[in-house]
Amino acid sequence: MNNASPRPDAATVAGIEQEQFLAILSREEALARFEAALFPRPIALDERLLGEALGSALGADVVAPIDVPPFDRANVDGFAVRSADLAQAGEAHAALLALNDERIACGTLPGLAVSPGTATPISTGGPIPRGADAVIMVEHTEPAGEGIEVRRAAGPGQFISYAGSDMARGETLLRAGTVIGAREVGMLAACGIAVVTVARKPRVAVLSTGDELVQPGAPLPPAGIYDTNGAIVSAAIAENGGEPVFLGAFPDDEAKLEAAMRAALAQHDMLILSGGTSKGAGDVTHRIIARLGKPGIVAHGVALKPGKPLCLAVCDGKPVVILPGFPTSAMFTFHDMIVPVLRRMAGLPPRTDAHVAATVPLRVPSELGRTEFVMVSLVEGREGLVAYPTGKGSGAITSFTQADGFVRIEALADHLPAGTQVEVTLFTPQVHVPDLVIIGSHCTGLDRVLAPLARQGLSLRSLSVGSLGGLAAARRGECDLAPIHLFDDKTRSYNEPFLSPDLELVPGWRRMQGFVYRKGDARFEGLSAQAAVEAALADPACLMVNRNQGAGTRILIDALLAGARPDGYWNQPKSHNAVAAAVSQGRADWGVTIAPVADAAGLGFIALTEEHYDFALVSARRERPAVEAFLSALRSPEVRQALEEAGFRPA
Amino acid sequence: MNNASPRPDAATVAGIEQEQFLAILSREEALARFEAALFPRPIALDERLLGEALGSALGADVVAPIDVPPFDRANVDGFAVRSADLAQAGEAHAALLALNDERIACGTLPGLAVSPGTATPISTGGPIPRGADAVIMVEHTEPAGEGIEVRRAAGPGQFISYAGSDMARGETLLRAGTVIGAREVGMLAACGIAVVTVARKPRVAVLSTGDELVQPGAPLPPAGIYDTNGAIVSAAIAENGGEPVFLGAFPDDEAKLEAAMRAALAQHDMLILSGGTSKGAGDVTHRIIARLGKPGIVAHGVALKPGKPLCLAVCDGKPVVILPGFPTSAMFTFHDMIVPVLRRMAGLPPRTDAHVAATVPLRVPSELGRTEFVMVSLVEGREGLVAYPTGKGSGAITSFTQADGFVRIEALADHLPAGTQVEVTLFTPQVHVPDLVIIGSHCTGLDRVLAPLARQGLSLRSLSVGSLGGLAAARRGECDLAPIHLFDDKTRSYNEPFLSPDLELVPGWRRMQGFVYRKGDARFEGLSAQAAVEAALADPACLMVNRNQGAGTRILIDALLAGARPDGYWNQPKSHNAVAAAVSQGRADWGVTIAPVADAAGLGFIALTEEHYDFALVSARRERPAVEAFLSALRSPEVRQALEEAGFRPA
Repeated sequence: MNNASPRPDAATVAGIEQEQFLAILSREEALARFEAALFPRPIALDERLLGEALGSALGADVVAPIDVPPFDRANVDGFAVRSADLAQAGEAHAALLALNDERIACGTLPGLAVSPGTATPISTGGPIPRGADAVIMVEHTEPAGEGIEVRRAAGPGQFISYAGSDMARGETLLRAGTVIGAREVGMLAACGIAVVTVARKPRVAVLSTGDELVQPGAPLPPAGIYDTNGAIVSAAIAENGGEPVFLGAFPDDEAKLEAAMRAALAQHDMLILSGGTSKGAGDVTHRIIARLGKPGIVAHGVALKPGKPLCLAVCDGKPVVILPGFPTSAMFTFHDMIVPVLRRMAGLPPRTDAHVAATVPLRVPSELGRTEFVMVSLVEGREGLVAYPTGKGSGAITSFTQADGFVRIEALADHLPAGTQVEVTLFTPQVHVPDLVIIGSHCTGLDRVLAPLARQGLSLRSLSVGSLGGLAAARRGECDLAPIHLFDDKTRSYNEPFLSPDLELVPGWRRMQGFVYRKGDARFEGLSAQAAVEAALADPACLMVNRNQGAGTRILIDALLAGARPDGYWNQPKSHNAVAAAVSQGRADWGVTIAPVADAAGLGFIALTEEHYDFALVSARRERPAVEAFLSALRSPEVRQALEEAGFRPA
Repeated sequence: MNNASPRPDAATVAGIEQEQFLAILSREEALARFEAALFPRPIALDERLLGEALGSALGADVVAPIDVPPFDRANVDGFAVRSADLAQAGEAHAALLALNDERIACGTLPGLAVSPGTATPISTGGPIPRGADAVIMVEHTEPAGEGIEVRRAAGPGQFISYAGSDMARGETLLRAGTVIGAREVGMLAACGIAVVTVARKPRVAVLSTGDELVQPGAPLPPAGIYDTNGAIVSAAIAENGGEPVFLGAFPDDEAKLEAAMRAALAQHDMLILSGGTSKGAGDVTHRIIARLGKPGIVAHGVALKPGKPLCLAVCDGKPVVILPGFPTSAMFTFHDMIVPVLRRMAGLPPRTDAHVAATVPLRVPSELGRTEFVMVSLVEGREGLVAYPTGKGSGAITSFTQADGFVRIEALADHLPAGTQVEVTLFTPQVHVPDLVIIGSHCTGLDRVLAPLARQGLSLRSLSVGSLGGLAAARRGECDLAPIHLFDDKTRSYNEPFLSPDLELVPGWRRMQGFVYRKGDARFEGLSAQAAVEAALADPACLMVNRNQGAGTRILIDALLAGARPDGYWNQPKSHNAVAAAVSQGRADWGVTIAPVADAAGLGFIALTEEHYDFALVSARRERPAVEAFLSALRSPEVRQALEEAGFRPA
């Protein structure tokens, strides 16, 4: 799509309305069609040196080519003997054995037989000589002249590991599809295998599309965003047995994109595109895929949330996929729909996901008719694990990255009631319930308090759900602390009036709020806050940015406006950072935010009043070691100094 | 140690008795001393491109350098509007909006403000223009002249993701020590970070010592064994955050070894030796370590089983370790004592092991005074998981590699009673209870039956514990099938007499047993089996190899001997392979084994009689799909043909 276009007519407007899905398929049907078009197929094989095979999947069964140990071996340092010679030996009766004229070390090929009445010194690992049928430990012998004296019997086979007792020649040691870890390396090395047949990793080309995409490391132009999917999809391919080849981000130019896609498909085993987020952008890639090979698109549009726009194709035997543009949708569909195919191509067994039982603390709405997957974080509640929807939506990368797993809601349900017992599929095999859980409003000052705790090795989880959400979680016992900054208009005070009896207030710090504007804006330079607001209200071209209902800052703004509703009043973002971004990017001309955020955004700042950022502590959890560590860090001179340096005033 | 030496005198014999441990320390004390000599120490840092950082540990906290999204962003395709313009809109009342003369795609910097009564077409991901405070979906509009008609209200903020709502500038996104997986890559990419500070992987030199060691891939000379520890320790280092550098195997030559160790230590962060298995060999490396740097050896001899000979040293700040020579001892002590230090040097959090509860089916003996770790395999029993000691001893690599985890027995216990409930520490985070469990006597023919099942994707476990061990496991319901070949002298028949009522016999195949000798041995060439035995008994220099009591083959041998006890009678290995190895290596001159094993060893073979290798099936498990698949594979023409080709006769 072009950045600039003439005034659109109604037909053009209607054009962006056309979202041509062939037919929305169920998740299961889409995956079945994709697999049917791809399998069965032979797995490409490769030879790999043992030292470089770690993490690869075995391409063929491995049969032991030798016995391990290869010979009957001594398990202790001592003497190879005939057990019959010691049949009468005991405390009261010493058997005397003459020593044979050799000493068997590791690697020594025995040259002499052990004849009756003799013994041969042997080291651990040495081959048992002919004639011997047991080994006695050196500790159980005494030197006696030129021989040894033994005062205990030895059973046949004592301290001998027989040839083949570890691995028997001809035995199937490992089967195709086994992932080679250190233990498999050990088995292969032990029987002398230096080169293994592995399944060749599928080479997967990754290509991002979108005019707005900028690669990490490059400066971000206005309206640009960083290409997240290219990096995350490449990494997920590597984690699931593929070899990613990231080709970069391409603008939506049909000819250039087609050339890039054809070249990518010719040189790789699979092609994954992550489209621009707009529907129009996707149309270009869909048209191209239809020309790339048979059978082409097998599923476009899957009754899956997130992930409806997923497009699955097979072009002349190679999978071609268009992932949705939003990172969480892209990652989720990749894991759910692409990983099974990738692993199968890579000769790997199906991924086995771990599950845990948990309860959802809130009503979780769901869209009827689509299988919905809700990303959740797990915290320890009063009665077992609680699964918290991460809840920033599929446009947010953190919805996926900060989740521990997901909950599946069937297509026929339109919600899960609060308290439902659910099965959580984990992203990693183990749940690590963190030592300290903080749920509420986030502040960069909080990171200063948590930093020393992290250095002490405590595992921390901080979920940002706003002050009211944090209070509710604290009342349900799902967190240790809820950071809040709530202003009670009646008592004209912060936080304390909002606590219930099971919670107590831990003073945090003060954050200076102020009127912000772009530096150099002559309308506001040098004014007091009240005068600045009056100047803003006096200029009809001047646009404000407000805050959401319920925010402490909103109460302050309403007081400053004294009933006025200037232009921009309905622009009501939920964070201090969003206010600063709106003003610095010219979406608005003024707003109210806190000093550290205004500083970071390079805005002019006129101080107004301090906001109290405190912690509602769940009293029942006060004695927990991690809570005590938090309280002590909060009061420590180092943390107080770090808070001050960051622009906060410790209470 | 030299391979050849003059006849040893008593003093030399006493010499190998001297095992100089400084003092045996408890496991905890040894680890504490090792860590105290190494930490605290700074973690070496490195810069890594994001695409190459997968699997590394973050070396520093990462703070979001920008807001994500960087601007207020549209979440759907539609129109940027002022919510106040739609306050009255509804089914009965259409709001009419004129279109502004631009269209905002992804990457478009808006040029026009949305003034009252107007709307601007916008694509998903596009930046919200000045003046707008909501987005309406294109599906909820109708073209109307040159503008659009809207029949539903929109709340402020509808379909807008505000700047910083995903990640807020200044927020600590990831903490030092976090392992970078695909999800972390996504967070870093989303805020434009292309180069990350990671903890530099410690470079660990690995050096094997022992005259007998041969590297995998090279031919194995008589009395040589393959170097297993070099490969497995290197792989385990890579799996735990280090960069292994394998320097090869060195003979026990003090001067050369010291030069190699000094060079290795100068160029690496850590040095791990795995010694020869004999105690004498270790002495050389201990003497050298004492000269390498301060403080030198901090623990030599740990009350740990397996692993007592472990030696821990710190030389001028670098860890130097001598692992025990036996592979299971080496791997176990590496995981238990070295991994914690390696991970800490690598900037990784402590490894968290997963545990499961299980029952031990048998009495497990333990050595008083040493913390003992028993490797176990898990199988599903009648009442939960059963932990089977893998039981081949620390000299066997498969004791470790075929185990699912281990059970810890405290130093003060001398055994675990049968039926004890134990906690199993898993080697991998998840238990995969196999679809089919076979416990009993192993036969290479069994691999032919299992191969098609593995190709069908069934997970299989086959534990080799002998016929009687398999029968006992079957009676306890711990396996599906027990392969047995037991001869009942009274009924002169195989297997059937040994079944209890809960078991049923599934016929397997017949294995031809025969008299074996080295080809070309003129004493036996061309004779019948009975004549060959008589020839052997007539030659006093002729040595036999017997079988263990209880083996079907032993009964056959005893019948052949008719009461004679020739030389070698007490050499009683437990497997067909060990018999073949003894004869082919000249430890014995004749024995009785099965035809396929004799063939593989290149031995002369005189047929005697067929042994019946059948399966005791646990009747209650007959209906399980994997059992049905096994029975059907056993009867299939393909498997029968494969068995015949391998030298077995299907029943």
